[in-house]
Amino acid sequence: MSSSGAAAGRGDRTEQPPMRDALVAAAFRLFTEQGYERTTVGDIVTLAGVGRRSFFRYFPTKEDVVFPDHERCLADMTAFLDAGPGDAEPVTRVCDAARLVLRMYAENPSFSVQRYRLTKQVPGLRAYELSVVWRYERALARYLRERFAGHPDGSLRADVIAAAVVAAHNNALRSWLRSDGRDDAEAALDHALTPVREAFGTVPVAPSRALPEDVVVVVARRDAPLWRVVRELESARGPG
Amino acid sequence: MSSSGAAAGRGDRTEQPPMRDALVAAAFRLFTEQGYERTTVGDIVTLAGVGRRSFFRYFPTKEDVVFPDHERCLADMTAFLDAGPGDAEPVTRVCDAARLVLRMYAENPSFSVQRYRLTKQVPGLRAYELSVVWRYERALARYLRERFAGHPDGSLRADVIAAAVVAAHNNALRSWLRSDGRDDAEAALDHALTPVREAFGTVPVAPSRALPEDVVVVVARRDAPLWRVVRELESARGPG
Repeated sequence: MSSSGAAAGRGDRTEQPPMRDALVAAAFRLFTEQGYERTTVGDIVTLAGVGRRSFFRYFPTKEDVVFPDHERCLADMTAFLDAGPGDAEPVTRVCDAARLVLRMYAENPSFSVQRYRLTKQVPGLRAYELSVVWRYERALARYLRERFAGHPDGSLRADVIAAAVVAAHNNALRSWLRSDGRDDAEAALDHALTPVREAFGTVPVAPSRALPEDVVVVVARRDAPLWRVVRELESARGPG
Repeated sequence: MSSSGAAAGRGDRTEQPPMRDALVAAAFRLFTEQGYERTTVGDIVTLAGVGRRSFFRYFPTKEDVVFPDHERCLADMTAFLDAGPGDAEPVTRVCDAARLVLRMYAENPSFSVQRYRLTKQVPGLRAYELSVVWRYERALARYLRERFAGHPDGSLRADVIAAAVVAAHNNALRSWLRSDGRDDAEAALDHALTPVREAFGTVPVAPSRALPEDVVVVVARRDAPLWRVVRELESARGPG
């Protein structure tokens, strides 16, 4: 990865206008060299060799240039959710949507790591990032609410699962960023999503079906006479 | 509830300095009458009849006056978590911590409902609120990380559970706010936390989901000696 990793990494992406990429590269070079707060939009456009208006055509504020791919990624993620087959297992689907987001980071490791360092240093960027994360979470929750429509507590379940998926995603993302983008991001995500799948996977787990055949389960009131529980246990174990 | 509910509701709280409460009441009256954006700190101190410096002694920014109780509530919640017995069941403990936060809202229904309406209208306040919510979530996660220290994936589990608890809390809070503070807030929270407890409650056996306290569950291999199962059953039932 070259020292101008942000520029090089993002320059490879043909779908973004070159001027937009040049602005992001110039911005990150300046943020790294002289700090985020001390860098003005004027500095960025001068280094990128474009006019001030070009900056604001792509980025409403200086903060937006720090997260140049999020709008597109959020749109991609929403489109992915909307395009899913109606019988897709909803928790699996939102886990796959989270994978799309992680890929956006993993495609440009040095850019993502630079931004991570920057965001840790600048409280305003942390706040911006929280609002971005919130939008991802709402998009996942909206999808799940539709899928759970008509179920009792469908919207509650949707909100909780969306939050859990985002937390798992962010946990995996942070581990990967702390490895300077060297670890396998998708493996980290799969691992992080395991407790979410286990907790909320909609395989609806009637305990009897989930248990292997050679196991018995006895549920009893704590104050039930022991003899009655043992009788029930014997009957559950069956002959032999 | 009087029409000056914010002032009246909060004026009852003896632990807050009267001047601070007067500033909050003046601010909310002006925000409601003329809008948040058009109200200046100068307007607020004039109505409250205090000097400009008094405002900034209590509130670093105009946004802070909208959330006057959060710093105290966050401190209370953190103290509650730290004060817990070392053998407290961690998921139950964070659910109880969330209840403390909900009570802060429920103690002042008309103030909370006013703020809810205001926050929905002003994007800057939404961003502020997200950063507040994030701090609660981090406090819960920190507690859980300590409690799960040494467990494989303890920090991941901590992050996921904290996010799920916060999502459930916010779901209950929003329902309550949408009822204009008329519903039973704590009942709504207990209900909302049920899927979180079911999913992550550390009682490790699947069929024990949401079991009342007076029920025991024993899982055993079908071919286990009966005496061993009975011994386990007796131990699960506990003394008495």
